Amino acid sequence: MFDWVDAAAADREAAGLTRRLRSRTAEDDVLDLASNDYLGLTRHPAVTGAAAEAAQRWGGGSTGSRLVTGTTGAHTELERELAEFCGYEAALVFSSGYTANLAVLTALAGPDTLIVSDAHNHASLIDGCRLAKGQVARAAHCDPRSVRAALADRTQPRALVVTDSVFSVDGNAAPLAQHLAAAREFGAALVLDDAHGLGVLGPGGAGAGAAAGIAGQPDVVATATLSKSLGSQGGAVLGPERVIRHLISAARTFIFDTGLNPAAVGAALGALRLLRAEPGRAADALRVARELSTRLAEFGLDTTAPDGAVVSVRADDPEHAVRWAAACRDEGLAVGCFRPPSVPDGVPRLRLTARADLTDDQIAFAVGVVVKTR
Amino acid sequence: MFDWVDAAAADREAAGLTRRLRSRTAEDDVLDLASNDYLGLTRHPAVTGAAAEAAQRWGGGSTGSRLVTGTTGAHTELERELAEFCGYEAALVFSSGYTANLAVLTALAGPDTLIVSDAHNHASLIDGCRLAKGQVARAAHCDPRSVRAALADRTQPRALVVTDSVFSVDGNAAPLAQHLAAAREFGAALVLDDAHGLGVLGPGGAGAGAAAGIAGQPDVVATATLSKSLGSQGGAVLGPERVIRHLISAARTFIFDTGLNPAAVGAALGALRLLRAEPGRAADALRVARELSTRLAEFGLDTTAPDGAVVSVRADDPEHAVRWAAACRDEGLAVGCFRPPSVPDGVPRLRLTARADLTDDQIAFAVGVVVKTR
Ligand SMILES: Cc1ncc(COP(=O)(O)O)c(C=O)c1O
Ligand SMILES: Cc1ncc(COP(=O)(O)O)c(C=O)c1O
Repeated sequence: MFDWVDAAAADREAAGLTRRLRSRTAEDDVLDLASNDYLGLTRHPAVTGAAAEAAQRWGGGSTGSRLVTGTTGAHTELERELAEFCGYEAALVFSSGYTANLAVLTALAGPDTLIVSDAHNHASLIDGCRLAKGQVARAAHCDPRSVRAALADRTQPRALVVTDSVFSVDGNAAPLAQHLAAAREFGAALVLDDAHGLGVLGPGGAGAGAAAGIAGQPDVVATATLSKSLGSQGGAVLGPERVIRHLISAARTFIFDTGLNPAAVGAALGALRLLRAEPGRAADALRVARELSTRLAEFGLDTTAPDGAVVSVRADDPEHAVRWAAACRDEGLAVGCFRPPSVPDGVPRLRLTARADLTDDQIAFAVGVVVKTR
Repeated sequence: MFDWVDAAAADREAAGLTRRLRSRTAEDDVLDLASNDYLGLTRHPAVTGAAAEAAQRWGGGSTGSRLVTGTTGAHTELERELAEFCGYEAALVFSSGYTANLAVLTALAGPDTLIVSDAHNHASLIDGCRLAKGQVARAAHCDPRSVRAALADRTQPRALVVTDSVFSVDGNAAPLAQHLAAAREFGAALVLDDAHGLGVLGPGGAGAGAAAGIAGQPDVVATATLSKSLGSQGGAVLGPERVIRHLISAARTFIFDTGLNPAAVGAALGALRLLRAEPGRAADALRVARELSTRLAEFGLDTTAPDGAVVSVRADDPEHAVRWAAACRDEGLAVGCFRPPSVPDGVPRLRLTARADLTDDQIAFAVGVVVKTR
């Protein structure tokens, strides 16, 4: 019955697209620019301590759906503090950013809704579009005119404009204020996925919505993950109170999923409090990103000018990207290696995280290794 | 733009279907028969200790996709031990049972696949069917003849038969061996969701696949959650090595999702080791379930005869179910209150978890409260 998977594996191998798991040790001594731990908080003692304490206090799991037994006092605290920090009326925590995105799209779009989705949106938004019962129009990447054209043509009474705030592969930002203006012109709402904006953009890292001055507007809904800048796991939806109440009663990935485990809630809350106490971290991440990008470009590498804490460098082909990333690792530098289907345009890349806590020496080392191993 | 959600909220309220979050405290002194913590392990010191230690050792999050930085040594250990315990060649851990189910269906069914799905399957399997590019046939509940009929009619070269092993609302079990026989007759594979079987059915709690003698077969794939008997969070897929390898390279909710957080991995591993060291827990859960069900039936309540650790009792209508559950809570007993869309047949129910660690006095107390508040 499963003979076909061997054929699929052979095709993947021939195209250089086989993926293999490598498990890491807790004491790896490579410089890690492969993770999404933008602020370097995941191993901060205040974060791991909060995780451990939450597990001890509440248990290893949250024991049920958020609606049955899965809402601890810690979930409620995290939701309140996150909404306040990011500038929205209310927030709702999910087990992952992936399921938060599925929730928003399936619960806010119905058969009477047109979803206008950026061509480079994250897989979880694309899956959310496919699960939602509305119709989907693909807008050209970061192009408010394309959004406007799709909205103008629509026959459906309702519409959502959906976009990543910072795109995960190249670190470029969406024109959120222009997208919202386009949406408003046609009575649509804006959904932004702030996975890579929270902790990096906006005052103190309050996110791309705050940076664009649109957080908390009645027609704006944001999603976020707790798994990147906040060094934990989980997702959140932020928006008007009534939208959050609607998700509680209508979102399948909320109703039919076990609540986020207490340790992850604790870690995210610990990181959020650190971020509020030390608001310079966000700016540090952006500074490191610009530095990395400028230096790599000086050496003639084909790199992005990032708006977030991600810098990518183009490789020749999938095999080259894999070889290049492996050579970096041999020199003591971990970088991400992105190949189809993880890139929007078929071009494989190395992806470097501009961690807020990198020193000048570490930046110089990273640049040296990437250049030397090209 | 979001005025329509107020109208939807009013409709829900009129139908008695509004859902509200209630946050619990860590020191709640009600008897909890609402959770899915079937073995009573989520607050066991070996489980919370393992969670805390993993967070301290590895960090608050796993920092990236399993394919980039998200696979720690602990993930690999958990996968090995889980596969061995349940009797499959290999296992793959996901951030939730929900995303594990989406992964299996989307990666194993393509346009050339018919998916035959039990009418009462869990929401995450239904969403997986909708996301998968194959065609879906709904089979009558727990009916191998209906499965066979759907397979016989098919035009697609490939087929999957998909079912919960133990259905979450009533605790009844699927006829797995008969389903597999039906699948084999027509060259199809069987996918079973063992969320409510792991830890409860089979030798020592090895799951429904082991109980039916079909675990580890080349045409059987199981999914499981770490969030119920194992007292943690997360999901897993268990099956032939080549199928697991395929998921690593092809499943979107694996590639595009952050790996399960270390504390949750630690908690699940702690619980699994406890379960192996004390194999009587599974039988205890079944004994408690039969006891609860028999006693409730003696008082004339409309209850199920469970195959797993779940007992449900039918209520008159949604409002009655809500009132009844609230009255139980006032008496010191937490029970689940299941209303549409969380029930397969529109009939609202109270749902009681038969926890392995309940004492005779607690069972008598629970029965007394449910009967008295009817
Ligand atoms: C833009 C974007 N959205 C959503 C997600 C999913 O978040 P999570 O990993 O927390 O499920 C990710 C990354 O994983 C992402 O990059
Ligand atoms: C049968 C079944 N499958 C899958 C899931 C999803 O698992 P998780 O909550 O770990 O995402 C659940 C419950 O939540 C379930 O009852």
